[in-house]
Amino acid sequence: MRIIDCIDKKVEKLPLTTEEIHFVVENYTNGRIPDEQMAALLMAVRLNGMDDRETADLTYAMMHSGDVVDLSGIDGVKVDKHSTGGVGDTTTLVIAPLVAACGGVVAKMSGRGLSFTGGTIDKLESFPGLNVEQSPDQFLRIVNEVGVAVIGQSGNLVPADKLIYALRDVTGTVRSIPLIASSIMSKKLAAGSDAIVLDVKTGNGAFMRTTKEAIDLARLMVALGKHLDRSVTAVVTDMNQPLGMAIGNALEVREAIELLSDRIAPEDPLFRLCLTLGAEMLMLSGLAQNKEEATDRLQEAIISGAGLAKFKAMVKAMGGDERYCDPYQINELCKVEKKVQVYVSNAGIIQAMDTEELGKAAQVLGAGRARKEDPIDPAVGIMMHVRVGDSVSQDTPLCTLYINDETNEQDSINRVLSAVQIGSTPLEKFPLIYEIIRGEDV
Amino acid sequence: MRIIDCIDKKVEKLPLTTEEIHFVVENYTNGRIPDEQMAALLMAVRLNGMDDRETADLTYAMMHSGDVVDLSGIDGVKVDKHSTGGVGDTTTLVIAPLVAACGGVVAKMSGRGLSFTGGTIDKLESFPGLNVEQSPDQFLRIVNEVGVAVIGQSGNLVPADKLIYALRDVTGTVRSIPLIASSIMSKKLAAGSDAIVLDVKTGNGAFMRTTKEAIDLARLMVALGKHLDRSVTAVVTDMNQPLGMAIGNALEVREAIELLSDRIAPEDPLFRLCLTLGAEMLMLSGLAQNKEEATDRLQEAIISGAGLAKFKAMVKAMGGDERYCDPYQINELCKVEKKVQVYVSNAGIIQAMDTEELGKAAQVLGAGRARKEDPIDPAVGIMMHVRVGDSVSQDTPLCTLYINDETNEQDSINRVLSAVQIGSTPLEKFPLIYEIIRGEDV
Repeated sequence: MRIIDCIDKKVEKLPLTTEEIHFVVENYTNGRIPDEQMAALLMAVRLNGMDDRETADLTYAMMHSGDVVDLSGIDGVKVDKHSTGGVGDTTTLVIAPLVAACGGVVAKMSGRGLSFTGGTIDKLESFPGLNVEQSPDQFLRIVNEVGVAVIGQSGNLVPADKLIYALRDVTGTVRSIPLIASSIMSKKLAAGSDAIVLDVKTGNGAFMRTTKEAIDLARLMVALGKHLDRSVTAVVTDMNQPLGMAIGNALEVREAIELLSDRIAPEDPLFRLCLTLGAEMLMLSGLAQNKEEATDRLQEAIISGAGLAKFKAMVKAMGGDERYCDPYQINELCKVEKKVQVYVSNAGIIQAMDTEELGKAAQVLGAGRARKEDPIDPAVGIMMHVRVGDSVSQDTPLCTLYINDETNEQDSINRVLSAVQIGSTPLEKFPLIYEIIRGEDV
Repeated sequence: MRIIDCIDKKVEKLPLTTEEIHFVVENYTNGRIPDEQMAALLMAVRLNGMDDRETADLTYAMMHSGDVVDLSGIDGVKVDKHSTGGVGDTTTLVIAPLVAACGGVVAKMSGRGLSFTGGTIDKLESFPGLNVEQSPDQFLRIVNEVGVAVIGQSGNLVPADKLIYALRDVTGTVRSIPLIASSIMSKKLAAGSDAIVLDVKTGNGAFMRTTKEAIDLARLMVALGKHLDRSVTAVVTDMNQPLGMAIGNALEVREAIELLSDRIAPEDPLFRLCLTLGAEMLMLSGLAQNKEEATDRLQEAIISGAGLAKFKAMVKAMGGDERYCDPYQINELCKVEKKVQVYVSNAGIIQAMDTEELGKAAQVLGAGRARKEDPIDPAVGIMMHVRVGDSVSQDTPLCTLYINDETNEQDSINRVLSAVQIGSTPLEKFPLIYEIIRGEDV
């Protein structure tokens, strides 16, 4: 078998066989296929596509390129949740404990933030003492005891994806639906859960800029789950403004705690999305027959405080100071040197928000990283006060910046002001949830 | 300027600017753009194409990546000829001296054969003593004195093409009309002639397998000539059987000498193609007003022996033993240990010939190279005795193998027999020349 023949086939729009795909992944991972040949193949895939069977083969081959987590030591249906990344999206911190409070089992590995998007692991590290690096044994023990643990990725998970992603990043081959789907799904499958709920974001703060692209990606990932014997549901959701009002690590933890303490109104988008994703997780876990039942149970877990209790137990089990799991105490972690309110110069109606730019406005304050090795400041970030469609005047602040280092204060203000488009047209509400795709739909 | 942006543009089917193309060629040649990024760009070009302006920019940038030959020290219109490569194609050895005999100036650099195709330089080296490596001064001196010289490529001509071609070869990006056109034309332009006649072969012994592809390539190269101020004519010709009857180096020299000695019938395809290409060269040189006049002058140069005299003078000037420039003496250079005639087992009409396979049948005898560094044996090869459409019986030899090393004798016989398709259908003659494309046609 030769890589050049695989390239030629893909150039001619022919599907690669299962053997060819395994050959490519194995030999690229072990260094026998050089970067230039892999780059040519990836570009041919980027432009000529792959069918579902090829993408499933690629996902399977990548998944098995390294360790596969064994969660069989944990009873029950293990359910995972993954978001394709957005701004102000703290759903994991809400629904992982909520689902556990309803009897679900969430043994989740999560990532750090990069560029304008946040990462759950960074948010958890806002708690003094909390250690996101847990040994496999500790991880299983916490999940068995608490029902939920969210830790950093450990072990040699999907090394093929690390190599291929780094190559795609420099060769213009990132934006390929089959390559994105296999990258996400190989990691989710290697993480060992039985069922997975995917939150596929679409909009100007998401990787998928159009709803069509997001739906295509969502459908493909659900189909991959079917091919590879996992229960997968994908929810396509809006990211044309920050999901919650907080952008920043401790600020988002605070918002999650407020939600778990029943202090956020049910019409709030973060609240609504948490209920939607959580309900799908409960249904895939077999813990609810339908959406209504699932939603009721989740709401009960909020009202009763059972969800917040699970959150607290998880923070404690991971070594964190659980006293901050309280809507008053958490304010201590959000204390900064300086708060600055940002105002518009002309009154009007907010027509649109450049969500990526708002993410960057928080990033430059120290809430996010430009490079993997950059440190972050958990306390800083942005509290939004308005949403798309809201009326604003010169007296209404758009947001409050939480600042510890003034160096980039003006940069952050400029980014916020350039991100928010003011006009005079009253706006229709736009959807939060575009589509839910379940196994039976593909 | 960043290579990743150039890749993204080409993925989106947008044309690259002149500056971007120069940036890519310059920085790939000097090593600042790594192979994997260039491979991705080449694959995007292979699949999404380039327009004529981009291809002209690429050709110009590649042409100027190294030395450009200065032929201004030679009087008159310098005219070059290039073939895209075939089997039994010894036209250069015939028409270069013929055109010179008609007053033309041919200062030509030529290549060596690889795989199943032959190379003019290898054929010339059949002459004992002949040195194809001439210094620039010697080259100009010979052309000024004789009117014609065909030498090996010297100097640092088009280094960008060497690097890009090597990368294309391993990344499945060889078969791109714009990349092929710019590779050929950058070398022809760097070789310094004012006018160029291109022989674009099509068929099972040519790189272009379909006539449409060949016509597209021919049109593009003529258009590139126009963009870059050279007079270019392209002739699209058939390569569904060997052009002449000889396949092998000294054997092809013998056939050329026989043609220049007026010993080959005018209906012979090699003869006809030599007149067609030679006539276009004379017209581009301004030495003939039309095809009839040009053809008449070429035929006179054959009958008078003036063409053969030029050939002899060139061989002598390059240090070769010119006594072999004689249809009897040249037989000395074709002496081999063993000649084997190949017969078919069933009588019939030759329906088709796999020309590439016939080229390989000669190659395995030692007439060609599998790798660049392989030695060749000038005397060995194949003399064909039949053409497509001919009737053959068990008594009619298909060809005679000229053998010095018996190792691959059976392999060669098998290849000949597998290459020749016998059937019962009488065949229509098929065209030798499909199209002639001149500057005014594009």
